[in-house]
Amino acid sequence: MEEKLNQLKGKLLQLADLNYTQAVLGWDMQVNMPPGGAEDRGELLATLGLIVHERFVTDENARLLEDLRSYSDQLDPDSDDARLIKVTQRMYDKATRTPPRHIAEFARAQVVGQTTWQEAKSKSDFSIFLPHLQRLVELRQEYASFFAPYDHIYDPLLDDFEPGLKTADVQAIFSVLRSEQVALIKAISSRPAPKDDFLSLEYSEESQWDFGVDVITRFGYDWEHGRQDKSVHPFTTSLGFGDVRITTRVNPTRLATALFGTMHECGHALYELGYNPAHRRLPLGSAASLAVHESQSRMWENLVGRSRPFWTFFYPRLQQAFSTQLGNVSLDAFYAAINKVSPTYIRVEADEATYNLHIMLRLELEIAMLEGSLAIKDLPAAWDARFNEYLGVTPPNAARGVLQDVHWSGGMMGYFPTYALGNLVSAQLWEVIIRDLPNLPEQIAQGDFSALLGWLRSNVHIYGAKYEPQELVEKITGNKIDPKPYLRYLNAKYGELYKL
Amino acid sequence: MEEKLNQLKGKLLQLADLNYTQAVLGWDMQVNMPPGGAEDRGELLATLGLIVHERFVTDENARLLEDLRSYSDQLDPDSDDARLIKVTQRMYDKATRTPPRHIAEFARAQVVGQTTWQEAKSKSDFSIFLPHLQRLVELRQEYASFFAPYDHIYDPLLDDFEPGLKTADVQAIFSVLRSEQVALIKAISSRPAPKDDFLSLEYSEESQWDFGVDVITRFGYDWEHGRQDKSVHPFTTSLGFGDVRITTRVNPTRLATALFGTMHECGHALYELGYNPAHRRLPLGSAASLAVHESQSRMWENLVGRSRPFWTFFYPRLQQAFSTQLGNVSLDAFYAAINKVSPTYIRVEADEATYNLHIMLRLELEIAMLEGSLAIKDLPAAWDARFNEYLGVTPPNAARGVLQDVHWSGGMMGYFPTYALGNLVSAQLWEVIIRDLPNLPEQIAQGDFSALLGWLRSNVHIYGAKYEPQELVEKITGNKIDPKPYLRYLNAKYGELYKL
Repeated sequence: MEEKLNQLKGKLLQLADLNYTQAVLGWDMQVNMPPGGAEDRGELLATLGLIVHERFVTDENARLLEDLRSYSDQLDPDSDDARLIKVTQRMYDKATRTPPRHIAEFARAQVVGQTTWQEAKSKSDFSIFLPHLQRLVELRQEYASFFAPYDHIYDPLLDDFEPGLKTADVQAIFSVLRSEQVALIKAISSRPAPKDDFLSLEYSEESQWDFGVDVITRFGYDWEHGRQDKSVHPFTTSLGFGDVRITTRVNPTRLATALFGTMHECGHALYELGYNPAHRRLPLGSAASLAVHESQSRMWENLVGRSRPFWTFFYPRLQQAFSTQLGNVSLDAFYAAINKVSPTYIRVEADEATYNLHIMLRLELEIAMLEGSLAIKDLPAAWDARFNEYLGVTPPNAARGVLQDVHWSGGMMGYFPTYALGNLVSAQLWEVIIRDLPNLPEQIAQGDFSALLGWLRSNVHIYGAKYEPQELVEKITGNKIDPKPYLRYLNAKYGELYKL
Repeated sequence: MEEKLNQLKGKLLQLADLNYTQAVLGWDMQVNMPPGGAEDRGELLATLGLIVHERFVTDENARLLEDLRSYSDQLDPDSDDARLIKVTQRMYDKATRTPPRHIAEFARAQVVGQTTWQEAKSKSDFSIFLPHLQRLVELRQEYASFFAPYDHIYDPLLDDFEPGLKTADVQAIFSVLRSEQVALIKAISSRPAPKDDFLSLEYSEESQWDFGVDVITRFGYDWEHGRQDKSVHPFTTSLGFGDVRITTRVNPTRLATALFGTMHECGHALYELGYNPAHRRLPLGSAASLAVHESQSRMWENLVGRSRPFWTFFYPRLQQAFSTQLGNVSLDAFYAAINKVSPTYIRVEADEATYNLHIMLRLELEIAMLEGSLAIKDLPAAWDARFNEYLGVTPPNAARGVLQDVHWSGGMMGYFPTYALGNLVSAQLWEVIIRDLPNLPEQIAQGDFSALLGWLRSNVHIYGAKYEPQELVEKITGNKIDPKPYLRYLNAKYGELYKL
């Protein structure tokens, strides 16, 4: 039986190679590819996708997995081998339920969706995107049907990003969050807003880049196993087990863009660089879920990067790099500015207090579209109405409203909630971290992040995809994903900042 | 039958996707990959190599090619379809003879070879590279054995780069060259050497880069379909039919390095950008051979880039960019300096008169290693001895001697002679070009390269791999590869420069 397991591992190692290869093609496409390369790159990716599917869904793999099912029952269910078999069975089940015809149709709809969305966004005209979004929703509905029966049509989509999580779980969590976050924002809005105009002065792009590099080097980003480049949309990707790259974007008149974007992507990269080397090129050597992934990026970006101890250490350096712009701005004023709460139209520019509301809005609309209770043509009006209800403002146009995000154009539905769940998990972990490392704030104030990274490595990163997200969070914190720590964190932080 | 041909083309298109994918992996490895990515990248390339092989060598393809053999006989043998079938049959024969196990082993040995060679070169310590070169030579010997019987063990290796050419052909050509080139060098060495110290002053790296970009933009390099980056060893690679990238290196105290290196790679890229779009992603949409490829790079680097008309146009611009260094150097003095003949240790820095001797040395050593008459541990001593014999000097260390070139570390044996053959072909083509375009020198002196590029596109580039190198050269010039035009070119150029 061990031999069969080794045979399976051999197949999985090759699949990992193909997945990493797709990552190389994708990274290059976003970072380096000249326009003339686009036509062929689409073909390359399509061919690779086909080959991955063909090589995974084989009679031989089906037999191996069938044979290993009973073997797995004899193993410690918490052993790496038992978990590997379980995760692979899950992947295999998903791959076999989806007909190749559907995969090809979905791939085509994604390409058309992304192209028309770009045009629609640039013209701020939803009608250009409407029929293609319609098609994508139909295809997502069809995809869900391959997994029937289900409790909710959204469950199979969510499960692709958050293994084991149900729509009802997410709704229960969000219903706790919604009222408390809305109340907090209301309380904050009655207080005077901090000044933050100095964040929008001219900042040298090169100095912004260098400052970000200094920060993430101190975080522990390993340049022997990664690199940073520029791209339109920042992202993190593994081009090999030992090659985890990040990208950032630098805006010459918005200091916060590169500053927090760089820390965010570094958080993702530290996670991917921390998987157990025993799982190299195997399915357990990957993320537990997108929420767990996002908990890492948001922790470094927000719980660390927007904290007072962090800036105790880094603000004098930032002032030195930008003495003209920040020489006369105090640490307190800077700290208040980067934590200013105010409703924005754009999700990726939202502060910590309003961010989750952007997500809830999208989740509710996604569910309504998939259930069929919201006609796609009515989506823009529904977006604007709900946006006003949650955030008190109405987007000026579709480009800064319903068309702002790329996800739906690629058929990525079930993805958005992971952003909010990541925020929750980051705060939930943080409470345990502070209990285990009571001196962490003092360490951070001295620019020392080694204990924090060490803790994350041994308590989170090392496990990779061995545990489902709810299992992992429970194993570490004693509870499943829970909104209360995040609410405690927000109330404490903003209570102090806004003297609530 | 046409349907079968279309089926075959469908398979070949997918293979092209995989080949381009390998190019993306390779380009990234040399330009961007952090050291930590090396281990997995080797696995990725090995897996891709295996999959390419598996998908090409199939019963279905064997049947298709068998069926198409008779169909091909009814076609005009010069038609694209007949040629495509012929070239594909040739590829198929090579692929079926090579066991997948060997392909994977070779791919892994290449990656290890390259990594250890880099270390060996940086430490100038051949012993670090020795066991890995040993392994690569053994694998190349094994590869040759798959094609037994052969006239010479080197034939199957050479044939991979120069379809149809035999070791004996190359040796015959080189034996004509050797004595005449040695005699020319001797005659030159008795004449006073031109001053060239001003080529080794401090030259801003950024200005060097910009000057090179200006030159190749005027040559006609299309930035919508390519890009230039820095790498340790400059190269050109196609990441898609419409994505042909070059790299260069810039030395702050050697003006010639980037200057001629950039033109050289641009020559390669112009070739790959000039294939017939009808052959997009098909085997005919690739190079006829490396010698033909090199004839293009050497033509732009030397016959154009080291010519007096070229500098008539560009020298005032170069003087403007580097007025401190070149303000007081006349065009004649500069022209003499960049064409100075003197033995150098480094092949890629060699002048046109000595260059081929560097190649002959390598060819003889490669043949001896493959024949087994030279033990790998004795290679450094053999290198130094023969170097002294041909060029009259002995390399100061291994880094500037036997370890200088990347080729052997990637198992590329049979490759070096193509460099010298490329020189010959460039001069052979040039005699026809000057007959067809008698005003070309005047055009070049005005910075106008459009007629030259147009001629190359319609007489060389467009054919891609439709003809074997000897066929192509004969079709254009009336003769097979012939050393005499190159010797005429050298004698005329250096006769004037050195007043022989």
